[in-house]
Amino acid sequence: MKNSRKSKSEATKSGRIGVWLLGAYGGLATTLVAGARMIARGLSGTTGLLTATDALRTLDFPAVSDMVFGGHDIRRASYLESATEIYAQNRTLDLQKLEVIREDLAAIDADIRPGCSLNCGPAVRGLKAKNGFRAASPAAAIERIAADLKDFQARHRLETVVVVNVASTEPPSVEPKEASDSDAFRRYLKTSAAKRLRASTLYGVAAAECGFPFINFTPNASSLWPAVQAMAVEHGAPVAGNDGKTGETLVKSALAPMFKYRNLQVLTWQGYNILGDRDGLVLSNPKHKSAKVKSKDGVLSRILGYPLHTHVGIDYVPSLGDQKTAWDFIHFQGFLDYKMSLQFTWQGCDAILAAPVVLDLIRFAELARRRGESGLMTQVSCFFKSPVGVDEHDLHFQFHHLLDYARRVQAKKAWPTGRIARPGEILFGAHRP
Amino acid sequence: MKNSRKSKSEATKSGRIGVWLLGAYGGLATTLVAGARMIARGLSGTTGLLTATDALRTLDFPAVSDMVFGGHDIRRASYLESATEIYAQNRTLDLQKLEVIREDLAAIDADIRPGCSLNCGPAVRGLKAKNGFRAASPAAAIERIAADLKDFQARHRLETVVVVNVASTEPPSVEPKEASDSDAFRRYLKTSAAKRLRASTLYGVAAAECGFPFINFTPNASSLWPAVQAMAVEHGAPVAGNDGKTGETLVKSALAPMFKYRNLQVLTWQGYNILGDRDGLVLSNPKHKSAKVKSKDGVLSRILGYPLHTHVGIDYVPSLGDQKTAWDFIHFQGFLDYKMSLQFTWQGCDAILAAPVVLDLIRFAELARRRGESGLMTQVSCFFKSPVGVDEHDLHFQFHHLLDYARRVQAKKAWPTGRIARPGEILFGAHRP
Amino acid sequence: MKNSRKSKSEATKSGRIGVWLLGAYGGLATTLVAGARMIARGLSGTTGLLTATDALRTLDFPAVSDMVFGGHDIRRASYLESATEIYAQNRTLDLQKLEVIREDLAAIDADIRPGCSLNCGPAVRGLKAKNGFRAASPAAAIERIAADLKDFQARHRLETVVVVNVASTEPPSVEPKEASDSDAFRRYLKTSAAKRLRASTLYGVAAAECGFPFINFTPNASSLWPAVQAMAVEHGAPVAGNDGKTGETLVKSALAPMFKYRNLQVLTWQGYNILGDRDGLVLSNPKHKSAKVKSKDGVLSRILGYPLHTHVGIDYVPSLGDQKTAWDFIHFQGFLDYKMSLQFTWQGCDAILAAPVVLDLIRFAELARRRGESGLMTQVSCFFKSPVGVDEHDLHFQFHHLLDYARRVQAKKAWPTGRIARPGEILFGAHRP
Amino acid sequence: MKNSRKSKSEATKSGRIGVWLLGAYGGLATTLVAGARMIARGLSGTTGLLTATDALRTLDFPAVSDMVFGGHDIRRASYLESATEIYAQNRTLDLQKLEVIREDLAAIDADIRPGCSLNCGPAVRGLKAKNGFRAASPAAAIERIAADLKDFQARHRLETVVVVNVASTEPPSVEPKEASDSDAFRRYLKTSAAKRLRASTLYGVAAAECGFPFINFTPNASSLWPAVQAMAVEHGAPVAGNDGKTGETLVKSALAPMFKYRNLQVLTWQGYNILGDRDGLVLSNPKHKSAKVKSKDGVLSRILGYPLHTHVGIDYVPSLGDQKTAWDFIHFQGFLDYKMSLQFTWQGCDAILAAPVVLDLIRFAELARRRGESGLMTQVSCFFKSPVGVDEHDLHFQFHHLLDYARRVQAKKAWPTGRIARPGEILFGAHRP
Repeated sequence: MKNSRKSKSEATKSGRIGVWLLGAYGGLATTLVAGARMIARGLSGTTGLLTATDALRTLDFPAVSDMVFGGHDIRRASYLESATEIYAQNRTLDLQKLEVIREDLAAIDADIRPGCSLNCGPAVRGLKAKNGFRAASPAAAIERIAADLKDFQARHRLETVVVVNVASTEPPSVEPKEASDSDAFRRYLKTSAAKRLRASTLYGVAAAECGFPFINFTPNASSLWPAVQAMAVEHGAPVAGNDGKTGETLVKSALAPMFKYRNLQVLTWQGYNILGDRDGLVLSNPKHKSAKVKSKDGVLSRILGYPLHTHVGIDYVPSLGDQKTAWDFIHFQGFLDYKMSLQFTWQGCDAILAAPVVLDLIRFAELARRRGESGLMTQVSCFFKSPVGVDEHDLHFQFHHLLDYARRVQAKKAWPTGRIARPGEILFGAHRP
Repeated sequence: MKNSRKSKSEATKSGRIGVWLLGAYGGLATTLVAGARMIARGLSGTTGLLTATDALRTLDFPAVSDMVFGGHDIRRASYLESATEIYAQNRTLDLQKLEVIREDLAAIDADIRPGCSLNCGPAVRGLKAKNGFRAASPAAAIERIAADLKDFQARHRLETVVVVNVASTEPPSVEPKEASDSDAFRRYLKTSAAKRLRASTLYGVAAAECGFPFINFTPNASSLWPAVQAMAVEHGAPVAGNDGKTGETLVKSALAPMFKYRNLQVLTWQGYNILGDRDGLVLSNPKHKSAKVKSKDGVLSRILGYPLHTHVGIDYVPSLGDQKTAWDFIHFQGFLDYKMSLQFTWQGCDAILAAPVVLDLIRFAELARRRGESGLMTQVSCFFKSPVGVDEHDLHFQFHHLLDYARRVQAKKAWPTGRIARPGEILFGAHRP
Repeated sequence: MKNSRKSKSEATKSGRIGVWLLGAYGGLATTLVAGARMIARGLSGTTGLLTATDALRTLDFPAVSDMVFGGHDIRRASYLESATEIYAQNRTLDLQKLEVIREDLAAIDADIRPGCSLNCGPAVRGLKAKNGFRAASPAAAIERIAADLKDFQARHRLETVVVVNVASTEPPSVEPKEASDSDAFRRYLKTSAAKRLRASTLYGVAAAECGFPFINFTPNASSLWPAVQAMAVEHGAPVAGNDGKTGETLVKSALAPMFKYRNLQVLTWQGYNILGDRDGLVLSNPKHKSAKVKSKDGVLSRILGYPLHTHVGIDYVPSLGDQKTAWDFIHFQGFLDYKMSLQFTWQGCDAILAAPVVLDLIRFAELARRRGESGLMTQVSCFFKSPVGVDEHDLHFQFHHLLDYARRVQAKKAWPTGRIARPGEILFGAHRP
Repeated sequence: MKNSRKSKSEATKSGRIGVWLLGAYGGLATTLVAGARMIARGLSGTTGLLTATDALRTLDFPAVSDMVFGGHDIRRASYLESATEIYAQNRTLDLQKLEVIREDLAAIDADIRPGCSLNCGPAVRGLKAKNGFRAASPAAAIERIAADLKDFQARHRLETVVVVNVASTEPPSVEPKEASDSDAFRRYLKTSAAKRLRASTLYGVAAAECGFPFINFTPNASSLWPAVQAMAVEHGAPVAGNDGKTGETLVKSALAPMFKYRNLQVLTWQGYNILGDRDGLVLSNPKHKSAKVKSKDGVLSRILGYPLHTHVGIDYVPSLGDQKTAWDFIHFQGFLDYKMSLQFTWQGCDAILAAPVVLDLIRFAELARRRGESGLMTQVSCFFKSPVGVDEHDLHFQFHHLLDYARRVQAKKAWPTGRIARPGEILFGAHRP
């Protein structure tokens, strides 16, 4: 059984591409892989994929059935096992359909390699995963990762490999001054100071040096430090990040503009997220949580244009599994300074919400590569909580920025390429062109 | 004491204009009048007025302190009495500030005239109001209304009088075929068939024939039948409607696009509104409710582009007064057809939300008049549940349409004028220019 | 394969009893039958069964594994089919466990007989079920039902057959004056006037005349008119009803006392229920809904002791299936008449909530029969929205009434037997002994 | 103007009593004092007072109009000022009624003395209050407090003085071993180790040594260490605590039993409280919050009888003022281990909810004193989050325990007196008599 198979319902416009998942056996990656195979075999539709809508489907995206999956993980597992665990916990993956794709999943298992857990933080260490690899130095680790990626490409004869970081959130990193320049950073990687780097940075570097597109779906900003972006540009690879926007923050970025449109003053926006699952367990560790909260918290004042009282809580509730529940309370002031409120409860399954967004991002990354675009993809800012180089959090602006891109693609017009955002540099946003 | 006084904080750019309120002693009108006077006297800020934000404040709007108020009502009352009742019920109007504007309110009382309650429906009849006027025929009623308007203009030497319908919702009207043409409708008004017309139509005709801007803040579509719009165009008056969008529908129109941006399939959108107050009492009558529900219900499928299960409930809960509470439950399907939900509870005070929107509309209407624009103001569609001639319910599109207008005004560029929308005719929306 | 099998984990204290389900292929009955077989085979625990808690488990209840199932239905179906449909819709029944009890379910199918749909109302007619039987007269229908029950008992050599009405809600019935006396009602059944009777009455009569315990889990009060209760007493059978309390009303009856304990004045209690499923479809018909709403609506003023503004809405939302969602808004007044609010959202699966309550009721009915008690079982009032003969809706009082009963049973003490409640007659409640 | 005046609507059954408030100018104390005077003058009803209901009103309680108010505070203020601030913030106190009781409030101001802030914690220090007194030693502080109390009694010729702790929550205290015995503790108070004691302990001792009833409405358990209870018994004074149950915890204790009554397994109960106000500010300090959270957290597992995942969050939201809002999410498992949920949002004003409860407690304390009862009042456990000596958190049990007491009072029967609860000792609860 081969690790890919075309569905008849999907018009194939191009050759096969690799999708390399960092955190390959996590809930999101498992849902993504199983879902993609179900779509490829015609067992499921494409709800949740923006690239499947009338507005976008005519672009030259790779078919889902043309994606060949592989990845790194520090845990030893199998997709069938991981998917069955998800069925038991959330009932999101249907048992009968899993039976049909059983061999596809087994074939993908053969392409999962031991992962790198360097400095991934206390909560990841707590998972006591046994399939992480040890390397003599960060440079050696990057070399090994790159070798895995290239081997995967060669064995499957793939046009490219899109690398996607869907691993657990790491604690925040301190950016060394060398991270602003690709050559300085290459030298830095050989020093002993580099031992402080976290795994996500090494993955980002490896993908960039291979010239493979890289999507950072986590809040680990270090995956896309300016030096890493610059390496990607040097090798002609598009990159995008950070931190997929799939739940409470998505609602925030859609709803906050409403208050601006009515000159209603938002006094307070409290948000409480509760979730179980491995992701929730890792985030329940304060060091890991801080990176996530930071990513979620900046959205509101950027949209509204003034400071306000906000709070973003994340608490671990094992019984919920992947059914993330969020309660937001918005206190606002209207005419004659009268106070009113809006509250919402969001009940979504994180992996179900994120998986199609990752598929969309893979397709946009590959489309950009085909068009010869490299560096930051600001066009996909609507999919991220902290879009790099983008100072616009209003979901509607972000969405229309994506439509602008699509129109240019359709008209075969150029789109800025080779972009890098240094800290504070804004490519799209408040000072919109 | 004069019925107007300038606040020092407001730069006055122009002469005084009249604001004529249909339903002058209702909760919304009272909040509007009291709030405007508080702003004029520097007792309150302008939160809730979009026209007071940085994006718009430089346009040539009339100052709030330059507005002179009058109106029609079928109930005998006084503003101090009505405002004190609102304090007791909702605490929205501050007692101490009411004391300061006591004489302003008394002066406005002198400009309230007996209203017309022709065919206003069973619930309005049930109010047993004693200050309605009787007229020999619809034509005579229109004449009397017009005389009141002109007398008001003359006595206060006003540049114009913006007429605003903030009366209770009437039962729906059947549009006679003559209502599509101004001359045919003028003839129809003299026939006995015209006795079926409801008061809101007569008010609309009177304003149009006087060449006064008319804003229909209610769902009574008959105020703006094509013939009425045509009369307004003939006399150079701008018009806008229908039905102010201030609560649950506002949230809907901001939130629904989010599902489209993610290709999440909305299966069900149930909305339940509960409110007290005279408005709630009138809407608890099924005949009156039907007009309102119709106005609220079309929004979703227009935004999403497909039919879905929707429900809009309105129930009368006396204890709430004007504190409208709405619960919406949204059931949607994502990747692999997995079902998830979002629910929200909106707790707002209707009059507090609506009053600044009415002030914004008055200012836009007067701005249009000054610029020589007549007929339908599609630029203000973001303020209405059922914007006439507009097939766009996405709040963000509507808002950006308004910003487009503002940019044209600032650039002293033309904007289409003399527009009328016949049934099914779309001036802005799905087939956007 | 036999229609019963003991689980080793259940101590068997007695012989086998029949459980006869009216509406045997409905969602509740299917969940009940499948769940009981899963418990019997040790595939599932007893969460949800009050009779399985430490407080009650030592009473002489029949084991779940000793229950033999049969029933009437007007639809032709099979349990495996019905259960698989439930899996697809709600995922409440696990596919792998259904596989294990596949033969048990098939055996029970052999004991389902064509049902009676006489005057069941327009929505039931709308289901176009094809397995209803036609009888020459109500008396003939009763005879046929009784024959089915006795045949079931004989074939399986059962100690008794507990008859449970879990069919769809019928429209309300008008109680004829003859329904207050058993003999008068027997004569009435032979007249042509009896043709107006609804199926639920005929089932109630048949069970009573057979001396079989009868549990009316629906709001069809006619199942337990005084004459029917009297027949049950004459034949030594216990009866209980009406309308299982499993969701929003359960929460109401637990929460309303809190306001009384603090002298907080409840001004308004609005409740909105949304649900899909066949049950929701039937209730979306106004005639059927009225019986249900009446049953739900009396609870609050009885608990609080004063009239208040209440509303109970039930709306059909197909996408929800059996996942009933209810939003309740409670507006109350405290010290210095200040208004505050509490709102809750209940998200439960109706069949999952009801099935264990039905099992509890079957066990209490059989316990009563063994103890020689007949007529109304007021001890189980906590399980009903409209407990017959009981004027107490406070869940806590009701629960402690049940504990009182349990203590008497354990102490082998008598409990009043042979009770009938005529309209307005109160056996337990406001005038508590 | 005298600091008391009888309302004609209140039957006076006895002489005047003093009410001494610790934290006299706080929001709760101000609402209590203003509300009591409004009731005394017939400006307001008694909603919220359980002692005003039919079930209890016939007991020999002191009239609200017979209460004479005084207290300690570390802030300098006046009641009119404090009450006007509350109006501006929450609108709970009506301006027009405040005008009527203006002189009553001024008279009470004359009875407020500088308070003790010894070891009240960092957040109270942060308030930078300027009216705290300094004492040479804890013993000297107790002496000064006692002198203030006795002086108050003498000047107003009061039968007794009920001392009520409504001050801010202190950080938790470590109980010294000497706190289990009154004499040992009296000796300890003279040692330098006693300098660690917090103000609330000193107040508790002073009241006990004066023989004045003491109500600890805060979670500061140190106010009622066994030694302090013993002192109260020695001087014939009743005492009660800890921590008034007025909001989210009240709902919890009413609702949790429902799950037990249905054998529904509660998996998770997450609670999030948000509030502004001085109380919220103090609780936003982690040291102060810990005492509060501990008090709120034990309720659930005690009611349900098994451990479960719980969380109690308290966050400071300035814009809310005293309008405490709480969201609770309850995840539970039913039949066949299916998971369901209930969530509620509580929106109450803390002072409005607490003030009548304090009045109820004062009345019960005085009733106990009149009946010669001393030591712990277990009868009022329903009013506390952590009732001392009581291992019963089910609100319904607690309420019926109070009714039992009332019946005994009415029947002039004895009730256990002279009770002290040492740690772990249970006077009422799980092992109910």
